[in-house]
Amino acid sequence: MPHPSSDRPLGVAVIGYAFMGKAHSQAWRNARAFFDTPAYEQKLLVGRDAEQAAAAAGRYGWQESTTDWRDVLSREDIDVVDICSPGYLHAEMAVAALEAGKHVLVEKPLANTVAEAEAMADAARRAAAHGVRSMVGFNYRRVPALALARELIAGGRLGTIRSVRSAYLQDWLADAESPMTWRLDKETAGSGALGDIASHLVDQIRFLLQDRVTAVSGRLHTYIPERPEAAAAGAPAEAPARKRQVTVDDAAWATLDLAGGAVASVEVSRVALGRKNSLQVEVFGDLGSLSFDLENLNELQFFDGTLPVRQQGFTRILATEPEHPYLSSWWPQGHVLGWEHSFVHEVADFLGCIRDGQAPSPSFDDGLAVQRVLAGVEESAAAGSALVPVDG
Amino acid sequence: MPHPSSDRPLGVAVIGYAFMGKAHSQAWRNARAFFDTPAYEQKLLVGRDAEQAAAAAGRYGWQESTTDWRDVLSREDIDVVDICSPGYLHAEMAVAALEAGKHVLVEKPLANTVAEAEAMADAARRAAAHGVRSMVGFNYRRVPALALARELIAGGRLGTIRSVRSAYLQDWLADAESPMTWRLDKETAGSGALGDIASHLVDQIRFLLQDRVTAVSGRLHTYIPERPEAAAAGAPAEAPARKRQVTVDDAAWATLDLAGGAVASVEVSRVALGRKNSLQVEVFGDLGSLSFDLENLNELQFFDGTLPVRQQGFTRILATEPEHPYLSSWWPQGHVLGWEHSFVHEVADFLGCIRDGQAPSPSFDDGLAVQRVLAGVEESAAAGSALVPVDG
Amino acid sequence: MPHPSSDRPLGVAVIGYAFMGKAHSQAWRNARAFFDTPAYEQKLLVGRDAEQAAAAAGRYGWQESTTDWRDVLSREDIDVVDICSPGYLHAEMAVAALEAGKHVLVEKPLANTVAEAEAMADAARRAAAHGVRSMVGFNYRRVPALALARELIAGGRLGTIRSVRSAYLQDWLADAESPMTWRLDKETAGSGALGDIASHLVDQIRFLLQDRVTAVSGRLHTYIPERPEAAAAGAPAEAPARKRQVTVDDAAWATLDLAGGAVASVEVSRVALGRKNSLQVEVFGDLGSLSFDLENLNELQFFDGTLPVRQQGFTRILATEPEHPYLSSWWPQGHVLGWEHSFVHEVADFLGCIRDGQAPSPSFDDGLAVQRVLAGVEESAAAGSALVPVDG
Amino acid sequence: MPHPSSDRPLGVAVIGYAFMGKAHSQAWRNARAFFDTPAYEQKLLVGRDAEQAAAAAGRYGWQESTTDWRDVLSREDIDVVDICSPGYLHAEMAVAALEAGKHVLVEKPLANTVAEAEAMADAARRAAAHGVRSMVGFNYRRVPALALARELIAGGRLGTIRSVRSAYLQDWLADAESPMTWRLDKETAGSGALGDIASHLVDQIRFLLQDRVTAVSGRLHTYIPERPEAAAAGAPAEAPARKRQVTVDDAAWATLDLAGGAVASVEVSRVALGRKNSLQVEVFGDLGSLSFDLENLNELQFFDGTLPVRQQGFTRILATEPEHPYLSSWWPQGHVLGWEHSFVHEVADFLGCIRDGQAPSPSFDDGLAVQRVLAGVEESAAAGSALVPVDG
Repeated sequence: MPHPSSDRPLGVAVIGYAFMGKAHSQAWRNARAFFDTPAYEQKLLVGRDAEQAAAAAGRYGWQESTTDWRDVLSREDIDVVDICSPGYLHAEMAVAALEAGKHVLVEKPLANTVAEAEAMADAARRAAAHGVRSMVGFNYRRVPALALARELIAGGRLGTIRSVRSAYLQDWLADAESPMTWRLDKETAGSGALGDIASHLVDQIRFLLQDRVTAVSGRLHTYIPERPEAAAAGAPAEAPARKRQVTVDDAAWATLDLAGGAVASVEVSRVALGRKNSLQVEVFGDLGSLSFDLENLNELQFFDGTLPVRQQGFTRILATEPEHPYLSSWWPQGHVLGWEHSFVHEVADFLGCIRDGQAPSPSFDDGLAVQRVLAGVEESAAAGSALVPVDG
Repeated sequence: MPHPSSDRPLGVAVIGYAFMGKAHSQAWRNARAFFDTPAYEQKLLVGRDAEQAAAAAGRYGWQESTTDWRDVLSREDIDVVDICSPGYLHAEMAVAALEAGKHVLVEKPLANTVAEAEAMADAARRAAAHGVRSMVGFNYRRVPALALARELIAGGRLGTIRSVRSAYLQDWLADAESPMTWRLDKETAGSGALGDIASHLVDQIRFLLQDRVTAVSGRLHTYIPERPEAAAAGAPAEAPARKRQVTVDDAAWATLDLAGGAVASVEVSRVALGRKNSLQVEVFGDLGSLSFDLENLNELQFFDGTLPVRQQGFTRILATEPEHPYLSSWWPQGHVLGWEHSFVHEVADFLGCIRDGQAPSPSFDDGLAVQRVLAGVEESAAAGSALVPVDG
Repeated sequence: MPHPSSDRPLGVAVIGYAFMGKAHSQAWRNARAFFDTPAYEQKLLVGRDAEQAAAAAGRYGWQESTTDWRDVLSREDIDVVDICSPGYLHAEMAVAALEAGKHVLVEKPLANTVAEAEAMADAARRAAAHGVRSMVGFNYRRVPALALARELIAGGRLGTIRSVRSAYLQDWLADAESPMTWRLDKETAGSGALGDIASHLVDQIRFLLQDRVTAVSGRLHTYIPERPEAAAAGAPAEAPARKRQVTVDDAAWATLDLAGGAVASVEVSRVALGRKNSLQVEVFGDLGSLSFDLENLNELQFFDGTLPVRQQGFTRILATEPEHPYLSSWWPQGHVLGWEHSFVHEVADFLGCIRDGQAPSPSFDDGLAVQRVLAGVEESAAAGSALVPVDG
Repeated sequence: MPHPSSDRPLGVAVIGYAFMGKAHSQAWRNARAFFDTPAYEQKLLVGRDAEQAAAAAGRYGWQESTTDWRDVLSREDIDVVDICSPGYLHAEMAVAALEAGKHVLVEKPLANTVAEAEAMADAARRAAAHGVRSMVGFNYRRVPALALARELIAGGRLGTIRSVRSAYLQDWLADAESPMTWRLDKETAGSGALGDIASHLVDQIRFLLQDRVTAVSGRLHTYIPERPEAAAAGAPAEAPARKRQVTVDDAAWATLDLAGGAVASVEVSRVALGRKNSLQVEVFGDLGSLSFDLENLNELQFFDGTLPVRQQGFTRILATEPEHPYLSSWWPQGHVLGWEHSFVHEVADFLGCIRDGQAPSPSFDDGLAVQRVLAGVEESAAAGSALVPVDG
């Protein structure tokens, strides 16, 4: 019985206070001020370090903090669990929370392995039968310009989609002297750019086209195969850093076959010097086309091939009108939103689904499908890029 | 005694819950989560309508609401007053609050008339002698890209500034059937596009160049001289709307002489179809140049004329690095901010000045200077654009 | 009798071989290869220096050269005279050529003074009565994207025009050590940025709106009042350059009233560091808007305010389709044109008018109107920017 | 003996008068007017249809025309042969011309098959021993911005190149009703988008990196597998068009391994609705990056990672300064060039090599290497995208 029979506000807990924990906390703090959500309270923040967790809780508006994530299972006043821990912990936490009757939001990617993702999707399906909701945090679905892109495609404005050209380019690892982290170790991170950012592209492609991936050819590459160990606290600065092995990719390429006949290309890199957070998606149909870049996230470029040729061209839609998705809740036209707002929309929609008894999207099944595609890329890469069938 | 001797958090009140009240409330709700501010509490929201004020307070995190703005004067637990009421109320409220020993933030423009602005600046100077702080809310000074622009100029990267080309173009009044509001009535609004948005440009020019305006030539125009009356609640839809006279400008042009020799052009419009919130500033020096557009507010274009000619060009600086103003408090590089963040920075800086006993900027004197320039534009416009000296 | 009764090709002469002479020569060399023109021959190039003139004639495809411009008057085989000499020579040459029954193309601006321009317009009107054609070389009317802009406006796609925002920014005089030239001396050049580049803007505004200028407020400025004398050939490099007085403006600003109610702003500079050849025009109507920048001259930005709000935005029309003006004569779509092509179109259209007995546009009367507007700007600038009526 | 001992001008013949014949003719007509070339004459145009060939010769400045391409072999006054015929004719014509001692420029791609390309490269090597020059027309190497890109890379400004992201997107075949042509038949065209436009990308990658391709994974796709037969002249309009099979790709994808360790991605399409002629190249190194788009061919975006982080960003270099490649011969800064100018540069450089006895670039060996890479893509595509080694 996920819904408390009482009328008390939903109790929310978040696990994690690093980058994603901070972003999700900001979303929980703001959703209610702008969107019509069911009542909720920011009850509990879970973090590894007691002191830092307490500080983060105070800063981001959580009533309490703890270092034991299992507290969220046992506490009856927690109804919603938002999991922002590293990927290798997702499966255990999410399954337990779902089984405890908590609604679960998991930061992307759903898991580090297909097996974990399958277990999670199974748990989500079982929980859904009892009205427990689950969602995976591919937040870019809720960037207004991309939500608008989906609406234009759904409305037939692009006709039949022929191809997608996508990339997610960053450069925070471009410096070969940037130190080793858990994100560069296959044990903890699962994969590198592939899982971290190609996952967003695969989700976008599935979302925009509402289609399945049936086969992939892929390629992985690690430009910087070893990096200096991160300096230990108190270590003498002059000591030469020991080198450690990077065991994940820092760039990946793939082509995807979609069931409906489209072909999508994917390219990701965390060493693309000069590109900061550039998720680019171009969709080409037989009636129209779209282009988007996350570095200008308020803009969608739309080419309407049904207009007279003389006036055709890519139209820069500044997606800040009340008529655009999510915008009527914010500011007057032209007053642009930022990256973090996508999380506010995500949380608001998730809360709405809980209230209305609807299935949130993207579901754990969506997250699983993405995972299968990524696994297909790895398999293909290991086989000299040969095409492999996938069920994604 | 503005600073309570006790260690209790600063108590903040906001007056207004419409567009600006909402934006400022959002800033107060978020400043502490990202910036190192003195402790403060969102005590009181003041609004005209009791029910709406109470709702807004709940939504935006204010503990209480009231319909009587004078409550902020009498309450000892209020230390800071943030005035977001229409411009014609600014002077009375701000002077009273300052005299009551409250720190005062006033939304721009400072006032509707030079006389009001002078009274406010006088009050601010008197209050400052007792450690009471005041600030006018030209929030765009705290858009990171514009703060960076100021730093580049201050660092001599543009050399001697020769000219500024600026515009603030919107189109929310482009439709001639858009109804009459208090913003289009000289009695309540003071002026139209001039006070509303040219004020931002004048402040930016003074800020970026750290210079005074000595003379202006100006021009005002009202393209749509009458508009339908806003439909009264319950009025029959079929009744033809009565027309009412628009008594303010909907576009304005000016050239400004700066004391240091630069010439600045200003163009503003609220009927520039297709431009949504496009504050554009270009600054040309003898060593370098800058260009900015608020519709892409994370970007600053910088031309470095000291580089070899072969590689010169406008560099699109995506001002989202930790090295850029305000950014180390937010997200990793490339994760862009929105319009509302400028208010968060404004509030955080104001709080910092209160804590540190520093004079906030822009001051009421800055606000007064802007007002004098705007009055000069009106005077010049009335005199066939003839140049008039100003002390701005 | 301008049209030879015989069927011999038209004989063309050009006066000048510097920048404009080279550009026009290139147009004459190419017009026939791409456009359906009457037959013509590049007969004669006139230049000050015999040797250089002969070399230029050889290089650019002229059969002969001379140093005496009056040869074009006396030679019966010359039917068309293209005048690319400095502005102070235009009037004498053009009037004489027209009176000799030659068709005349004059590079812009038409003349250095209104009096000269009036004499030329008179001569053109007299000549037209005998079928002699004349045209002033505001070549940007024939940039395809701007020709398309005119078509969109003529087709009512912008509705009623409310305002134009225009600028022509260059930086070739930004360096204060760049030496003195005849272009910086009022005696030879007439004016500075005003006549040289503001003239293009005034012509564009008149062209796009097909409207008259009735009043102007203006402003001139000279940022660099003296410059080193150009080094004489053979002068010792170590000799310090003598300084000479710059007697023309290097920047100008104006607002123009159009008869139809629109207001246009004009800003020009030859010291706008970083802007290379940036003629910018934005036109705002009540149904649509346009934006153009000569540095991307194949593109026109069109905002269609009649589309549903959700899909409104500026459309980047890459004006390279066969459906666009002049393009069917060139390359397949997307194969962009350059600056020089505007002159090819100018020459081709002029030849077509000669063949078809039509009045070319822009006419000398257009050139005169521009001159009157520029004179109005100077008059206003001298009177502290006070508005002056003009017949432009 | 390719160089005539006499001092007579070089005699040039062109084979073809369609799209490429027109573009090359325009180059021959203009090269001498802007560049310091050896003397040459446009002697002979060869075309299939006598009447059209004669008309084209007249229009584009060729002294004579013929329908028999072997005339160029036998005529002693022909020194240079420019081959713009369809690809399947290149080998026979080029080998014969080289063996006849003529300098040969061949439009890209070098040939339709590797075998043909090898024969041509052999012939070129043999001819070179006698001072006979040959060159393949990958004209984009001579777009000034791309030539500048090469210079920046050669100068070490990008450091070690890690990856290239490239695409060539067009949409002239996006309409499924666009009729069948020889370009869509494998017999005559060899391949589709792959040979036509991916060849440009492969050449650019090899050029910019001065590196060899060692392996490729590829993919081909035909979105529109049959098209209506082109209407025969005189056919009744109402007759339904018979459908014919398209036997070439209309889109292709590949990843290339470069010997130096870089990975390059390639995507091409002739059905990418809205992209008109968009050759995009991005090059990412460990010190800097570059980005280019042929639709804005005067611009190169350069990211200099060695600058202080605060001022890093992509710099839009408007490659129109005298300091930029080829520009000192054209117009003042900011006066942009068009697509066709790349051919003028190509012809001028080829003539310079003939005069100076230097080996032109790109050579037939370069053309052969490109062909091998394209063949590798086809082979990989046929093998489910599995990586295949190539000697490219």
